[in-house]
Amino acid sequence: MELLKQRILKDGTVKPGNILKVDSFLNHQMDIGFLNEIGKEFKRRFEGQPINKILTIEASGIAIACIAAQYFDAPVVFAKKAQSLNLDGEMFTTKVKSYTHNRTYDVILSKKFLGPEDHVLLIDDFLANGEALLGLIDIVKESGAVLEGAGIVIEKGFQPGGKKIRDMGIHLESLAIIESMTEDSLTFA
Amino acid sequence: MELLKQRILKDGTVKPGNILKVDSFLNHQMDIGFLNEIGKEFKRRFEGQPINKILTIEASGIAIACIAAQYFDAPVVFAKKAQSLNLDGEMFTTKVKSYTHNRTYDVILSKKFLGPEDHVLLIDDFLANGEALLGLIDIVKESGAVLEGAGIVIEKGFQPGGKKIRDMGIHLESLAIIESMTEDSLTFA
Repeated sequence: MELLKQRILKDGTVKPGNILKVDSFLNHQMDIGFLNEIGKEFKRRFEGQPINKILTIEASGIAIACIAAQYFDAPVVFAKKAQSLNLDGEMFTTKVKSYTHNRTYDVILSKKFLGPEDHVLLIDDFLANGEALLGLIDIVKESGAVLEGAGIVIEKGFQPGGKKIRDMGIHLESLAIIESMTEDSLTFA
Repeated sequence: MELLKQRILKDGTVKPGNILKVDSFLNHQMDIGFLNEIGKEFKRRFEGQPINKILTIEASGIAIACIAAQYFDAPVVFAKKAQSLNLDGEMFTTKVKSYTHNRTYDVILSKKFLGPEDHVLLIDDFLANGEALLGLIDIVKESGAVLEGAGIVIEKGFQPGGKKIRDMGIHLESLAIIESMTEDSLTFA
């Protein structure tokens, strides 16, 4: 997606530890008009698939998923990092290792909101090692829902997540794939 | 907002500990068409104010803020519960006690995204004791931005947050104010 690549080159900054900061428009401050363009592009790439639910993970996937959901006319459900006393009833659970935060989270989703009748699109901001996406895939499998695909805004192509997901036969669409990056240069695949 | 009150009566459930669960449409699964109606109503209630930024707090405020922001043509920025190694630079910080999670969070916001040039609307899903909103107000004060008001979806009128905020002279709009609730009945103010 050319608009996204240009925005990354203009406003993204690379930090030590393979961190690409896009927090001025994607995941701390959010440019809502731009997220609408991302939502339209996801719709175009998954056109014709019978998606009736968008699944994401807190926190930075929520904004993108909600704006994109408007183009699918589907509700969004987000998996929570478990710490809440406010969730009861039966939960799907999985574990997700965050390299960014250097810890493992229990991730939960109420069983009320995902089941065999659902055709699910996963949405998230980044794909690097694939841990978050693999956790969501676990939850979809456990629920009996049909996984229609995964839409990612930025994939770090030099990390193994994308290959893992594609090797599972999942329809993965990443709107920008970074081939390499340093503090001085960034190239797309 | 009548549509909201009807939805709370239809799909909300009251749990022990003064917990109102509206997780089927507002803060775990999100009905995006319904959130658009909420966004329009916030725009109506803050019509004419020069709002150029929406500020919320992760995670459950993000969806509402992003959908509402479309009616204000403004970016959203969300305060993060601090645990990230991925945030650098200077931060506004405050502490927020969560009664739901029974702990106190450090909450942070990058100084890049809020300053004296901003006219800010706060948005969140719930107002009860007011801790989250007071934390966001602290951050706005620290930034030098102008606080235009606060838009809340559901206020628990029997808890002290609403009075605290109104007594500060802040333009607070709650789309539904619950006067009392038990597992058998719920009344609006």
